[in-house]
Amino acid sequence: MDRSTSLRSEPAAPFGPYLLFLGDTVERGYAKTAFGLRDWAPDRCVGELALPAGTVTTGIPRLGPVEAYASGARALLIGVATPGGSIPEHWIPTLLDALAAGLDIVSGMHARLVEIPELTAAAKSLGRRLVDVRVPPADIPIGSGKKRTGKRLLTVGTDCALGKKYTALSVARGLEARGVDVTFRATGQTGIMIAGAGIPIDAVVSDFIAGAAEMLTPAAAPGHVDVIEGQGSLFHPAYAAVSLGLLHGSQPDMFIVCHEPGRTHVLGYPDFRLPPIEEVIAQTTALGSLTNSAIRCVGVSLNTSDLAHDEAERLIAAESDRLGLPVADPIRGGPAFERLLDRCQD
Amino acid sequence: MDRSTSLRSEPAAPFGPYLLFLGDTVERGYAKTAFGLRDWAPDRCVGELALPAGTVTTGIPRLGPVEAYASGARALLIGVATPGGSIPEHWIPTLLDALAAGLDIVSGMHARLVEIPELTAAAKSLGRRLVDVRVPPADIPIGSGKKRTGKRLLTVGTDCALGKKYTALSVARGLEARGVDVTFRATGQTGIMIAGAGIPIDAVVSDFIAGAAEMLTPAAAPGHVDVIEGQGSLFHPAYAAVSLGLLHGSQPDMFIVCHEPGRTHVLGYPDFRLPPIEEVIAQTTALGSLTNSAIRCVGVSLNTSDLAHDEAERLIAAESDRLGLPVADPIRGGPAFERLLDRCQD
Repeated sequence: MDRSTSLRSEPAAPFGPYLLFLGDTVERGYAKTAFGLRDWAPDRCVGELALPAGTVTTGIPRLGPVEAYASGARALLIGVATPGGSIPEHWIPTLLDALAAGLDIVSGMHARLVEIPELTAAAKSLGRRLVDVRVPPADIPIGSGKKRTGKRLLTVGTDCALGKKYTALSVARGLEARGVDVTFRATGQTGIMIAGAGIPIDAVVSDFIAGAAEMLTPAAAPGHVDVIEGQGSLFHPAYAAVSLGLLHGSQPDMFIVCHEPGRTHVLGYPDFRLPPIEEVIAQTTALGSLTNSAIRCVGVSLNTSDLAHDEAERLIAAESDRLGLPVADPIRGGPAFERLLDRCQD
Repeated sequence: MDRSTSLRSEPAAPFGPYLLFLGDTVERGYAKTAFGLRDWAPDRCVGELALPAGTVTTGIPRLGPVEAYASGARALLIGVATPGGSIPEHWIPTLLDALAAGLDIVSGMHARLVEIPELTAAAKSLGRRLVDVRVPPADIPIGSGKKRTGKRLLTVGTDCALGKKYTALSVARGLEARGVDVTFRATGQTGIMIAGAGIPIDAVVSDFIAGAAEMLTPAAAPGHVDVIEGQGSLFHPAYAAVSLGLLHGSQPDMFIVCHEPGRTHVLGYPDFRLPPIEEVIAQTTALGSLTNSAIRCVGVSLNTSDLAHDEAERLIAAESDRLGLPVADPIRGGPAFERLLDRCQD
């Protein structure tokens, strides 16, 4: 089976800092990737580059490839989506300029950089990397089930698309601010771009999911914490397998359940009710104990972006009382989030 | 992500009957695939073909490609393994002869037929199929979770490699002999060759496992039964994700737990004890109820091939009493197996 034709041979080797490429887009909504990078990884974004027809800007300096390299950029990141996910022909000259200036190219599009002959030829002769972040590495082993040193924390969810990545990023930063030796481990394309490394776990061939998670979070120093971006949900009719493989391979010591108050059914699956948070805690503990008998829930992350401040505070306090666990919205932060971080350090 | 480059566009379209190709092997052990086909699908094996240096025979008629086609063969099946899984250069003329005679080519080897330019060119001009059974179809949808008509039975296991395929084949035949409208659904390469159709579930990209299982067992007449070959085990540290995706997508009404008496640990994983049969029943019922609340265990299949007849009979009776379920070794058959089939028709 063909699991990779990427030129990228070292999945964990960081790429960037970035020059954000905006193409010729005139719709802000198409540039969500660029804005996400600007917001979550500003220190990795050196500048932006748009074609003459483009009108969208992230507000950071406009630089050409040569200037960007001189300012510390090491990769051009395609920060816009196109209809159908293709790479337009008229972008190629700019991408070739970037390679010539010393930049790798990083893309999360469906179309693969490595399938564009002009780019592969130039990258090869110049010694640059074409990084298709949707392509997993080629050398993923079968899961071993072997315990590794260091601590691991996984974000899990009652559903998809409700804050597992944001929670993992926030917890990793919160722990880092407390002086903990911590690494955010990305499992999806946006997370991989933010971190500059990772494995797109949902693109891995199913026999290798647990092995991919083991590869993503290798043995580390005893005090080190890997904070792993979760995927899917154990209660999702299409994606539960991804969630289980990630759970088994990452062998978390700790997990945080992510939930969006008010969501009652699986997104896009009106026949499937969302499980109560307690059920997610019980199921994750039961299934996760196969590879780590010490697994425990350290708290709950609520995505309260649709609620007013007071309403959110009341709900967070009530849920914490009800569940007997730290509950917080990491984006709101505050004492509740500090209590959640305390529990991660117990 | 590249999920298929196969020429095969219709995964469910049967291929064969077969001319078994034995290459120039002189070791019977290398021809296990050919012997498996002869034993499990004799009505699909028209003849065998070996190169002059080959000494192994399955005992069925020796035919050239033209004769085989005239006798009803529609595909040459590569029935031997080679060191490293490659297709030797000196086989190519024979494979081209087969295509010219009207035969498709079916292979389960690591090396892909579709990556051999002489074969793809000939297949294209002649309108033949090159079927790499390890390659899943390209058009697998995301799982829908939608209930389908017809009944489904899945074999699950306490571990890998202990009889899930044999049990599914035996149950499908047993039900067929009773006049039930039944289809064996193959999920691994050997099963796919025996059935002439199927999806290699462990080669599917993880986001699509449940969808692949849905595609494999489409809606059917109310009285129809799909008997689905299980994969892995929910308690396997590397492969549980495959088992869960297959469980969710196949939405079984019934399942049979397969076990090998005396096996105490996961094959190749000495740190992982095998779960008791009761635990597999409980876990399969709990997890399977997400997509089919009516799921139930209809019995247990014991692989007693290492036991003497009397010892096997005693164990089967004792386990049936202990569990309160039909227990049988389908290969031994007999009244115990008939009781298991009775339960599948309840």
